[in-house]
Amino acid sequence: MDARDLPIVERYADCLQIGARNMHNFSLLKEVGRSHLPVLLKRGFSATINELIMSAEYILNEGNMNVLLCERGIRTFETATRYTLDLNAVPILKAKTHLPVVVDPTHGVGLREFIPQMSIAAVAAGADAIMLEVHHSPDLAKSDGEQALVPEMLAKLVPRLRAVANAVGRDL
Amino acid sequence: MDARDLPIVERYADCLQIGARNMHNFSLLKEVGRSHLPVLLKRGFSATINELIMSAEYILNEGNMNVLLCERGIRTFETATRYTLDLNAVPILKAKTHLPVVVDPTHGVGLREFIPQMSIAAVAAGADAIMLEVHHSPDLAKSDGEQALVPEMLAKLVPRLRAVANAVGRDL
Amino acid sequence: MDARDLPIVERYADCLQIGARNMHNFSLLKEVGRSHLPVLLKRGFSATINELIMSAEYILNEGNMNVLLCERGIRTFETATRYTLDLNAVPILKAKTHLPVVVDPTHGVGLREFIPQMSIAAVAAGADAIMLEVHHSPDLAKSDGEQALVPEMLAKLVPRLRAVANAVGRDL
Amino acid sequence: MDARDLPIVERYADCLQIGARNMHNFSLLKEVGRSHLPVLLKRGFSATINELIMSAEYILNEGNMNVLLCERGIRTFETATRYTLDLNAVPILKAKTHLPVVVDPTHGVGLREFIPQMSIAAVAAGADAIMLEVHHSPDLAKSDGEQALVPEMLAKLVPRLRAVANAVGRDL
Repeated sequence: MDARDLPIVERYADCLQIGARNMHNFSLLKEVGRSHLPVLLKRGFSATINELIMSAEYILNEGNMNVLLCERGIRTFETATRYTLDLNAVPILKAKTHLPVVVDPTHGVGLREFIPQMSIAAVAAGADAIMLEVHHSPDLAKSDGEQALVPEMLAKLVPRLRAVANAVGRDL
Repeated sequence: MDARDLPIVERYADCLQIGARNMHNFSLLKEVGRSHLPVLLKRGFSATINELIMSAEYILNEGNMNVLLCERGIRTFETATRYTLDLNAVPILKAKTHLPVVVDPTHGVGLREFIPQMSIAAVAAGADAIMLEVHHSPDLAKSDGEQALVPEMLAKLVPRLRAVANAVGRDL
Repeated sequence: MDARDLPIVERYADCLQIGARNMHNFSLLKEVGRSHLPVLLKRGFSATINELIMSAEYILNEGNMNVLLCERGIRTFETATRYTLDLNAVPILKAKTHLPVVVDPTHGVGLREFIPQMSIAAVAAGADAIMLEVHHSPDLAKSDGEQALVPEMLAKLVPRLRAVANAVGRDL
Repeated sequence: MDARDLPIVERYADCLQIGARNMHNFSLLKEVGRSHLPVLLKRGFSATINELIMSAEYILNEGNMNVLLCERGIRTFETATRYTLDLNAVPILKAKTHLPVVVDPTHGVGLREFIPQMSIAAVAAGADAIMLEVHHSPDLAKSDGEQALVPEMLAKLVPRLRAVANAVGRDL
């Protein structure tokens, strides 16, 4: 999203997402800091946990307190997965900030088959929410098809997520 | 452990641990492959998942089938934690091998305060076991004191681990 | 630089610099692709060489052929230096593109004392240009003072750069 | 090399090489520290510069002062090259120790075509020596053929290395 597109996006969207590649786009951060919409701020794939928190400060500082922090995988030497989902970031972000922490296992693993397990692990680590890409026919998806869940996978995952959420004292 | 120490270690130990810095020590891997003891093989902190599996092959190839694979954190650019615990490795190792997968959150996080959450996450991701360092007075520990749990933390953790293990269909 | 600032920047600047944190800012890349000014495109500190080339394509594709590619250090596990200057990128970028390759040892090392050696190495690796920060009183610099050369260092460096440039068949 | 092989290796070799995967093999380091032969200590591909220096201390501490430190590339997110040759390490090792610094561009790049440029850059950065793999018919090499120079490449490289060495005030 470009800062110039903000007015039209705000008219239709319920939440603004700052993508990983824009986490350091400070003029955009300030702009969404003046919006009335909540902002989901994704961690840059090579940003440290502290840098994520500092980027959130740019938004909070403009008066928008509805910021959600999102761990979505970092770039490492490992090539078996698309990114390395850094779940360590979850309890650390919870301890260092009062903001809700969201995990995006879709990008953080990048392989459909392993996304359910990492979704469950994210909730167990203390995530307040997870975001998942689901597509009814992922082979036809315009992008990222290989990492989209199919609806049946989601249907099987939800009760497992609920069970783990309950086990760690959370509701789903 | 040096290969020359193996006979005396074997006389007293119940399990042989190959540390992360020895994961590529092929002569040692072959040596423990001829032992009757189970081998816990820790992932090198900059070894890929595939390299871990290949190191396990050196042991299996000598006839020792009791190999446990251990994820203990990888080295990344992140400095807020000692290592980055790569829980993605858990479901991948489970899918690619038939070996038990152990997670070591103690080294993988390196900060006492966040080890319980990551222990629970490891079980949720599908780990067959976790290994934890516990010390009754960590300030006096000869090494790694800042990452050792104290006994009360362990006592509080165990029922939470059991609840999550049950929620994902496992026993503790 | 924000895309909205482009008209005023264009009025005064001789060259547009896309900073490392904006290498993936595709709307900005397209915008400067329509400028008549040359563009110095810095590699994102965790962007691959191929991603740098793809970002350059966004600019070239809009008709601006005056693009300079700049290696300025990547983020790795090494903490002794601010970044790891990836000089491997120089001959590879020269082989894969026809664009001039610039090296920024100031950011790529981050420690004043070692910048001269890496400047010389960059020229030896085939760089078409290097960019250096110089400050007459770096202790008073508003940013990055610890990595600015002082004028006397530059004066001593230039003849050494010239000698190495000549040795590899280039003029300074 | 296994510590047990040392006596026979010592009988025939002129120099002991500790490979990157053994840089943390402390019992082997101590063993070669008691040898009368010089030791080429290669940096582990994910070892920091400080860790390399600490490994050298294990050897020096046993009385063997003939240690050469070797930069041979580190593991990063970049996949265009086999490793990322960290030439920043050269001036830093020269400043922090009094040991000779060797660079191995063969492993540090991993692609034959770019090894000459990086050899020259290594000398320009201040390396005391470089080590190169050369093979008269690399397609038949048992390992690492794709990164071996052919003799004609070496013949062309040597005068260029000499010219750059002279330009930075060194002899070849």
